[in-house]
Amino acid sequence: MKRLSLVAAAVLLFCAAAPARADEGMFTFNNAPVKAIGAKYGFTPTQAWLDRVRLASVRLARGCSGSFVSKDGLVLTNHHCAHSCIEQLSTAKQDFVATGYTAAALADEKKCPDVEINQLVEISNVTDRIGKATDGKEGQAFADALKAEQAAIQKECVTAPDLRCDVVTLYQGGHYDLYKYRRYQDVRLVFAPEKDIAFFGGDPDNFNFPRYDLDMALMRVYGTDGKPLKVDTILPFAKASPADGELTFTSGHPGSTSRGETVAQLQADYELTTPSMMTYYSELRGMLAEFGRRGAEQTRISETLLFGVENSLKVFKGHFQALGAEGMLAQKAKAEADLRAKVDADPSLKQEVGGAWDGIAKAVGVERSLWTRYATIEGGRTSGLSGDLFSDARAIVRAADERGKPNGERLREYTDANLPFMAQRVTSTAPIYPQFETERLAFSLTKLREYLSPDDPLVKQVLGKDSPAAVAERLVKGTKLADPKLRKQLFEGGKAAVDASNDPMIQLAKLVDPEARAVRKRWENDVDGPIRRYGAQIARAHFKIEGDTTYPDATFTLRLSYGAVSGWAENGKQVPSHTLIGGLYERATGSDPFRLPKSWADAKASLDPQTPMNFVTTNDIVGGNSGSPILNKNAELVGLAFDGNIHSLGGDYGFDPALNRCVGVDVMAIKTALAKVYKADRIVRELETAETRADAR
Amino acid sequence: MKRLSLVAAAVLLFCAAAPARADEGMFTFNNAPVKAIGAKYGFTPTQAWLDRVRLASVRLARGCSGSFVSKDGLVLTNHHCAHSCIEQLSTAKQDFVATGYTAAALADEKKCPDVEINQLVEISNVTDRIGKATDGKEGQAFADALKAEQAAIQKECVTAPDLRCDVVTLYQGGHYDLYKYRRYQDVRLVFAPEKDIAFFGGDPDNFNFPRYDLDMALMRVYGTDGKPLKVDTILPFAKASPADGELTFTSGHPGSTSRGETVAQLQADYELTTPSMMTYYSELRGMLAEFGRRGAEQTRISETLLFGVENSLKVFKGHFQALGAEGMLAQKAKAEADLRAKVDADPSLKQEVGGAWDGIAKAVGVERSLWTRYATIEGGRTSGLSGDLFSDARAIVRAADERGKPNGERLREYTDANLPFMAQRVTSTAPIYPQFETERLAFSLTKLREYLSPDDPLVKQVLGKDSPAAVAERLVKGTKLADPKLRKQLFEGGKAAVDASNDPMIQLAKLVDPEARAVRKRWENDVDGPIRRYGAQIARAHFKIEGDTTYPDATFTLRLSYGAVSGWAENGKQVPSHTLIGGLYERATGSDPFRLPKSWADAKASLDPQTPMNFVTTNDIVGGNSGSPILNKNAELVGLAFDGNIHSLGGDYGFDPALNRCVGVDVMAIKTALAKVYKADRIVRELETAETRADAR
Repeated sequence: MKRLSLVAAAVLLFCAAAPARADEGMFTFNNAPVKAIGAKYGFTPTQAWLDRVRLASVRLARGCSGSFVSKDGLVLTNHHCAHSCIEQLSTAKQDFVATGYTAAALADEKKCPDVEINQLVEISNVTDRIGKATDGKEGQAFADALKAEQAAIQKECVTAPDLRCDVVTLYQGGHYDLYKYRRYQDVRLVFAPEKDIAFFGGDPDNFNFPRYDLDMALMRVYGTDGKPLKVDTILPFAKASPADGELTFTSGHPGSTSRGETVAQLQADYELTTPSMMTYYSELRGMLAEFGRRGAEQTRISETLLFGVENSLKVFKGHFQALGAEGMLAQKAKAEADLRAKVDADPSLKQEVGGAWDGIAKAVGVERSLWTRYATIEGGRTSGLSGDLFSDARAIVRAADERGKPNGERLREYTDANLPFMAQRVTSTAPIYPQFETERLAFSLTKLREYLSPDDPLVKQVLGKDSPAAVAERLVKGTKLADPKLRKQLFEGGKAAVDASNDPMIQLAKLVDPEARAVRKRWENDVDGPIRRYGAQIARAHFKIEGDTTYPDATFTLRLSYGAVSGWAENGKQVPSHTLIGGLYERATGSDPFRLPKSWADAKASLDPQTPMNFVTTNDIVGGNSGSPILNKNAELVGLAFDGNIHSLGGDYGFDPALNRCVGVDVMAIKTALAKVYKADRIVRELETAETRADAR
Repeated sequence: MKRLSLVAAAVLLFCAAAPARADEGMFTFNNAPVKAIGAKYGFTPTQAWLDRVRLASVRLARGCSGSFVSKDGLVLTNHHCAHSCIEQLSTAKQDFVATGYTAAALADEKKCPDVEINQLVEISNVTDRIGKATDGKEGQAFADALKAEQAAIQKECVTAPDLRCDVVTLYQGGHYDLYKYRRYQDVRLVFAPEKDIAFFGGDPDNFNFPRYDLDMALMRVYGTDGKPLKVDTILPFAKASPADGELTFTSGHPGSTSRGETVAQLQADYELTTPSMMTYYSELRGMLAEFGRRGAEQTRISETLLFGVENSLKVFKGHFQALGAEGMLAQKAKAEADLRAKVDADPSLKQEVGGAWDGIAKAVGVERSLWTRYATIEGGRTSGLSGDLFSDARAIVRAADERGKPNGERLREYTDANLPFMAQRVTSTAPIYPQFETERLAFSLTKLREYLSPDDPLVKQVLGKDSPAAVAERLVKGTKLADPKLRKQLFEGGKAAVDASNDPMIQLAKLVDPEARAVRKRWENDVDGPIRRYGAQIARAHFKIEGDTTYPDATFTLRLSYGAVSGWAENGKQVPSHTLIGGLYERATGSDPFRLPKSWADAKASLDPQTPMNFVTTNDIVGGNSGSPILNKNAELVGLAFDGNIHSLGGDYGFDPALNRCVGVDVMAIKTALAKVYKADRIVRELETAETRADAR
């Protein structure tokens, strides 16, 4: 499953340039390779085509992609992108993850507690502004200037409460664009199939193909008036499945790639960060799966997290394998040596850029020494302090501190432009389960002690004379933060409210905060900052030598990829491009994760077994692209991207056109399921109307 | 903790030669570097000294070391080596792991269900016999001939029921020795402290120093007459702690090292086998720890396994770090290139040995392709089919098949020489816990499906239409193998009994066996065989070029190491060589794993805080050495090896005299604990008698 792992997003902040080959590439919409597409496929997208696709594409801000498929704000995405919302709307007695959900009427559409949807309305170049603000600066001065200028640009851009503005670092710092989005926080669940069909094959089939998943969900965006959002630009469903060899596009938000990393960075990935992620996620997986074995309710409340962990684990294992593949690092080293030789041959370029690789290597040295502490108490996974309660407590404590500072000096999640996103999460009404919170916190405090050592002063302060389990039990029992009203009150009450609180989870967040901020500061000043600064230099050298037909590394921003429907050869055997509904029934065993839901068992006789189910294309996608529409040249939706094949996991470091494949749900499977399996007539009519209007266009 | 992981023993069958430097080296007793010791430390061990130490040293056949410390068969080893027996003798109501155990009288000494102790009585060279049997053979012919000759040699050697004979492969196949042991299977628990003091600091402190563990236990060997064994040769306790810089020896059984591996082998370790072990053990650790969180009884029945898993995990993480350390593989590559250049410079040597490295590289290629399947259904961990019930079922099924074959054609565990060891395990009266068995089997069947894929025909046969959990539940509920009487009956009943059994676990073992045997055969013929054959060639070249002052890689056979009491410098600070009992009280927090047992809290006032607790030496030990006596030049016991420091984990690939340290319990801590904390007067008297007799010697 290609959903963006938040971890990956946080860890791999570095983006960079690479030359485009074959159908490789995740192109920004302001630098789409229309000529190359025309030359290869005989269709040249126009600006109007690009604008239409861009405006009809959406981002699920917590890590996925989607698209508007009706003029009444209906959004198509993956089930696994809506999974968290579906679980949050469920209870022990009514489990929509298991039973699926179809809103019979508009009034039955249920609001998701913390989904935010973004629609990209404008891109503008702010490279010069950032350049002027940071030129000649190093270390903390560079990091501070960059942060301040980004915050200023974003704040100027947010001229209305429903706007979200992000300064996006492209080409490893070689280019900065401002992305202006419409921000929608009233998003409601319209339709979800049962998990058994949405995630048929489960973790064993994840990242594999042939595949038989109806990994789809429909949500609807509502305006601030509480009514369905009126949308001008949509992607209507196509009339038929795409044919073998047919040109396909994806428009979505690949989370992060490392294709432009230097060899020093890749070696640190291989030797340190990736294996440490693999062992951490493996252990967490073992814990979560065993917790779920306690009973049905424990399974229900933990399965979204387990899914995410298993997915990330497979990704990291894939990365590790890709980096260790024969010749991989040697090839990267050769390309780097070639570029360096060219730089050295040009005196002015050598003067400007020659020291960049060593500069990055030095920053990577700092990264290696800081990594464990950073990842344990501050970075993406915060593996030493887990659970919703702690993470809300930290957000409350930090928001109180940060709001007191000038916008440009704040941690980036707490700038004025970003606070609404944080506020939605902290005040979410999603249920919190004390037993599960206790297990997660106990587990993570054990990791805190393991990763930092029992002799670390912070560990001693957090644990005192108690065991991690005892501390976790005391904190979860003692805190009142499970109550969203209290969280809202503290979040909005600011520093006075936080200072007055004696809630033990708030106390823990306060206790840890100075150390967490300290390691983050060092990371920003001595790792992230230098890597951006020197990365930008390398990117500029790259542009100068190789030209600008390149695409930047993925940054969880909108990208266009082009390709074609195509199977591939595996161990000398050809894997066909499509699977059929008939194959689904053959693969079913009756047991999880190969169990068919009753709806599909009942509908069997009414379905044409020749209907396409899933298919593969050569589109270059990675995690974050989940839910991306797969389009034909008429900008009609022929499929819904939900995964890559196993070879796609190497896509973090490069694209292999012979093997790397995008996996999608066929549009005919979606139509068939809605009409014949779920008899979701209201939705079927809405989608058909959209299709017909598009015909008349 | 340095206990031999069974996994490591099974995986790293390959042993090889390396030149000895500093205090490096695990020397066989028939090639002890007495001159080098004399030159460096002014004491030259005599043959009588070596014989005495050898005969007083014992091996715990399931993975540890120990020594005779009284003439009535008392054996000193580590608590973690006896942990499994202590747990097996415990019940939910009477948990000797928690409370410790002191046998007040001889009659209170409790028989361990499956401990076997070996005493090395003779070593003889069988290199020529093996050479003659295998010369000129390759592939399956080589593997078959080797197996047959080993079995024949062992069978000839076992002239009495209490003898055990192992052909030991040394120097990667460059040398074969026959080790003849006395085998003792009536071993009883005499004394064990509480786990809280034996494993004070738990996993966090494991492989760390400063350290405060009383990781000791006393067992007694009984003869076939049911009376304590009379022993001629013992290692008496020394009168005092060893001084800084004092010469120390260890005599024990290092499990396995990879110092002589070629670069191709090391790369496979780094890229494939070690990371796959790390993720597997991480996940299993998460599962076991969370299982233990269900309640006190679940903790009790799972903690021995959890300890082993955490220990192995730390070892594999250490290996991974050592292999990835800057310059490590480059240095190995340089040494290999140097040796190859010398071989190539000598025409006859080139003719004989020149192809050996490529031959090993080819075998490693096969290893890489077979590894997952081998490790999942056959190799050391059998990660796809776990639990005591399955493992007993497999042993019963295989023993029935193998006994029908000529001795020389059997799987090596089922040759006449090895059957008693297997029989003891299968007929053990150690309790089996159905809930725990179910969780372990369910977990492993999930791994079976994950590692081999749901489409693998064997996986389909094992799981049918059911989930791993459902299959595990059905099997554990349905089998009667928890009853040791039934196991004994089936094991002794042979093929007729097994064929007549409709026990579902027996059926599973039968179902899996052809595939498991097939992958093992390929492994033996195309991986292990060629590596031995070519490894032997390289070893011979090495002897020829570098001389014979080398030691073989560890093989879980008796080795002598020499060194001295010495701290080391860590990040510019000196770590002292000793810790004191006073430091233990300072480090205690009251919570697991830093909780003191009541006995120690109560005894505090009566103890001299200046008494040494643990200490470190430069002796070169690895897993399997746990329980080794640490001796002074008078062959008196000054300490009890139980661990290495964190740098010792790199010891698999080489010895760094600046950093690698052996960690032991000081003899004065042992004496103090027995006399003042546990008031184990009977044992104290027995040990004092041994000490006095030694004085009179």
